[in-house]
Amino acid sequence: MNYPIITVKEQLLADNDAVAAKTRSLLQAQGVVLVNLMGSPGAGKTSSLLRLIRLLDGLRIGVMEADVDSDVDAKTVSAAGTKVVQLHTGGLCHMDAAMTAQGLEALGPEGLDLVFLENVGNLVCPAEFDVGADLRMMILSVPEGDDKPLKYPLMFQVSDVMLVNKMDAAPVFDFDLEAASQRAKALNPGIQIFPVSAETGEGFQKVAALLRGLCAERRQNG
Amino acid sequence: MNYPIITVKEQLLADNDAVAAKTRSLLQAQGVVLVNLMGSPGAGKTSSLLRLIRLLDGLRIGVMEADVDSDVDAKTVSAAGTKVVQLHTGGLCHMDAAMTAQGLEALGPEGLDLVFLENVGNLVCPAEFDVGADLRMMILSVPEGDDKPLKYPLMFQVSDVMLVNKMDAAPVFDFDLEAASQRAKALNPGIQIFPVSAETGEGFQKVAALLRGLCAERRQNG
Repeated sequence: MNYPIITVKEQLLADNDAVAAKTRSLLQAQGVVLVNLMGSPGAGKTSSLLRLIRLLDGLRIGVMEADVDSDVDAKTVSAAGTKVVQLHTGGLCHMDAAMTAQGLEALGPEGLDLVFLENVGNLVCPAEFDVGADLRMMILSVPEGDDKPLKYPLMFQVSDVMLVNKMDAAPVFDFDLEAASQRAKALNPGIQIFPVSAETGEGFQKVAALLRGLCAERRQNG
Repeated sequence: MNYPIITVKEQLLADNDAVAAKTRSLLQAQGVVLVNLMGSPGAGKTSSLLRLIRLLDGLRIGVMEADVDSDVDAKTVSAAGTKVVQLHTGGLCHMDAAMTAQGLEALGPEGLDLVFLENVGNLVCPAEFDVGADLRMMILSVPEGDDKPLKYPLMFQVSDVMLVNKMDAAPVFDFDLEAASQRAKALNPGIQIFPVSAETGEGFQKVAALLRGLCAERRQNG
């Protein structure tokens, strides 16, 4: 096992947004872009991450895998040759800014272009915490259903990007991409929506291009 | 709209287990069985519930739909002619015992045989709270993947019953039922596992029989 496993602790009394702002300015100075990747259990966060890492060849990438327990995802991502740290939340269903700062310290973002935080699988709590990311990317997968923006609105409100994953399985499920998109845009008109399939790789080129653009911009302004 | 919408409040200082025990003995005296239905967003909690309600013809059933927001599920269940109350958690990702007691008061369990609490879609937090249910039933759906017991162990540890839903989609996904079952049983040897499909109805007869048995037993001892 070639990645550290860290138990991160929430900082109940700290002002989350102040810690997040500090992280953001620190990463900006270091020329690093941080992406907060969120979604339900099984939405395809890790497999989407693997697709993006492959497409972002040439960028120096680090990954923080947050989990209540286990290191299943860190193992998978580490096997792909990426710098990884596994974060255990000790039962908590989300990452806050302080926990993310602890994770970044363990990972060491210096010299990286892009860091992904794979948040705990959950459509509720992770949406409530600004962790200091430059981009909030959420994944809705086809089998979850197109009504999810109605039921978990905050996640769709706070996300900059929404991947609609498992599009290859769309024929099997009664999923209406147009309805899901409209529901998400009603909550968040600026949300960028990308239909993808981590299984086939479909649609990830555009997401990778977006991330490359963010990294190029960060380097210029860093 | 023919169902009440209640905003329930958590009771931070109360002893959750004491409130849960009180609920349990109250329901026992009333001859009512309470089932706590849990699972990820989109695992198929509502559609499984509808399948079970149809199969449990003759039983007097009530449903508490818990959601951070919206009344999508209450609408669906109410349309099926069942007594329903919609509970809003005000952003919280789980139901605790006090919130459940508030929901039961709004529903009115007197004269019912069986009450379902459809918990907030989440594999983490709902597992931490005894709400006073007689049976904890969790749903793992095929598209979520067979590794979920490794990543969200508490949910599998505390559940009496595990439905493996969307079995009709198994050919599309790389899902190993045997592996998922073994992982769940390693955490909880007593867990009862039922492969089902809310889409086709497959497998729900056995689950319905289990619930009928619990209700019959409750009536005899009530």
